[in-house]
Amino acid sequence: MYPNIRKRISKKITKAMFDFNLLEEGDKVLIAISGGKDSSTLLQELAYRRGKIDPSYLLEAIYIQADFTETNPQDFLREMCQNLSIPLHFLNVGVQQRLKNNRKLNCYWCSTQRRTELIHFALQNGFNKIALGHHLDDMVETLLMNMVYKGEISGMAPKLIYNKYPLSIIRPLCYCEEKEIILYAKDAGFLQYSCTCNFSKNSHRKRIRSEIHSLTQGNSTYKQNLFKSMRNIHID
Amino acid sequence: MYPNIRKRISKKITKAMFDFNLLEEGDKVLIAISGGKDSSTLLQELAYRRGKIDPSYLLEAIYIQADFTETNPQDFLREMCQNLSIPLHFLNVGVQQRLKNNRKLNCYWCSTQRRTELIHFALQNGFNKIALGHHLDDMVETLLMNMVYKGEISGMAPKLIYNKYPLSIIRPLCYCEEKEIILYAKDAGFLQYSCTCNFSKNSHRKRIRSEIHSLTQGNSTYKQNLFKSMRNIHID
Repeated sequence: MYPNIRKRISKKITKAMFDFNLLEEGDKVLIAISGGKDSSTLLQELAYRRGKIDPSYLLEAIYIQADFTETNPQDFLREMCQNLSIPLHFLNVGVQQRLKNNRKLNCYWCSTQRRTELIHFALQNGFNKIALGHHLDDMVETLLMNMVYKGEISGMAPKLIYNKYPLSIIRPLCYCEEKEIILYAKDAGFLQYSCTCNFSKNSHRKRIRSEIHSLTQGNSTYKQNLFKSMRNIHID
Repeated sequence: MYPNIRKRISKKITKAMFDFNLLEEGDKVLIAISGGKDSSTLLQELAYRRGKIDPSYLLEAIYIQADFTETNPQDFLREMCQNLSIPLHFLNVGVQQRLKNNRKLNCYWCSTQRRTELIHFALQNGFNKIALGHHLDDMVETLLMNMVYKGEISGMAPKLIYNKYPLSIIRPLCYCEEKEIILYAKDAGFLQYSCTCNFSKNSHRKRIRSEIHSLTQGNSTYKQNLFKSMRNIHID
């Protein structure tokens, strides 16, 4: 039914690897997986590619469990990692219990807490790359959200090199559209098992998502143009 | 009916003058006027402000007549400039006759031709600043159009300093929204007289305009954020 979707995703990852020099021989890569379709797709692809399409690198996975989530993808993740022979770590982060009095939980707070713990874990365990499953739609949404709500042009980079740590964050799915990842996950047979955080979805992001669909008229080239524009800046 | 609109526009011009250092004592300023509400508003404001709110500068106006337009704002412009004691120049540009065979006239071609002639005229006549009537909506539309259709972050600058010529382009209305300029033009009594090019309006611009309204939910702060983002770039 989706004969070429694996090839298509793989080609786009190859292009990202090449354009942004994401991975090198001997890298120690930690992939953050959530049980959702995006990071599951990335995990499968990286596991398949390393030493073949990609250089040889160490690959391990981590699942960060927050204290408030009801979803429980551990069994799904354990099985998937076992099938791919990828070591899997679990890390508990008390996102909710760290909240100060009268503060309400939100996606920004949670992701900051989890990001901090993820970086600590990577540094303590000798990883030099963290791979995240963000795709083209995530990146374009973040760009537009930051422009509209923060008045700044900023966003997720395909490769973010930290100056403070011997660590980079890479996003190999940066050229893949969400709709392609859905097809991949269907084809690979894990879409129905994958699950993500069901805490209130960020309403700004939701709104911006539909605005982008309208702005780009559902045209992939226009969406890619938005992504491309971040690296093509001509302001006096 | 619109008691504060003149103050509001004037305050926003003052802020632009200050933020971007648009005008200095002794400048020789050529304002390009079209007969439309935007450049008419700018003309009235500059004529009123110079030597009072603004430093003292020479101010003259120019109307560039294209060979295909049917609108004829010359009388309106002559009268307005006479009332404000601003010298007015007319310049004919054969936009259509310069088209190569089989090429169709479009807004981009026309504006490039007119811009070239405008710069020549300014340089030949010793002007060091060209003032244009673009407002906030124009600038935000151009930014989004360039992102969606060209894949680049670029746009109109409040002050564009040419390296090749002793000349800058300034846009003192950059903080003013179009709806404010409409109120100003109504209040000043020239909205019904003002007219602009009635050649097919750029359809991309038209579409982007309604997309921006939706993207910003008609909220001025969000629209200003889009404008602000052009000077607030954080890309690794």
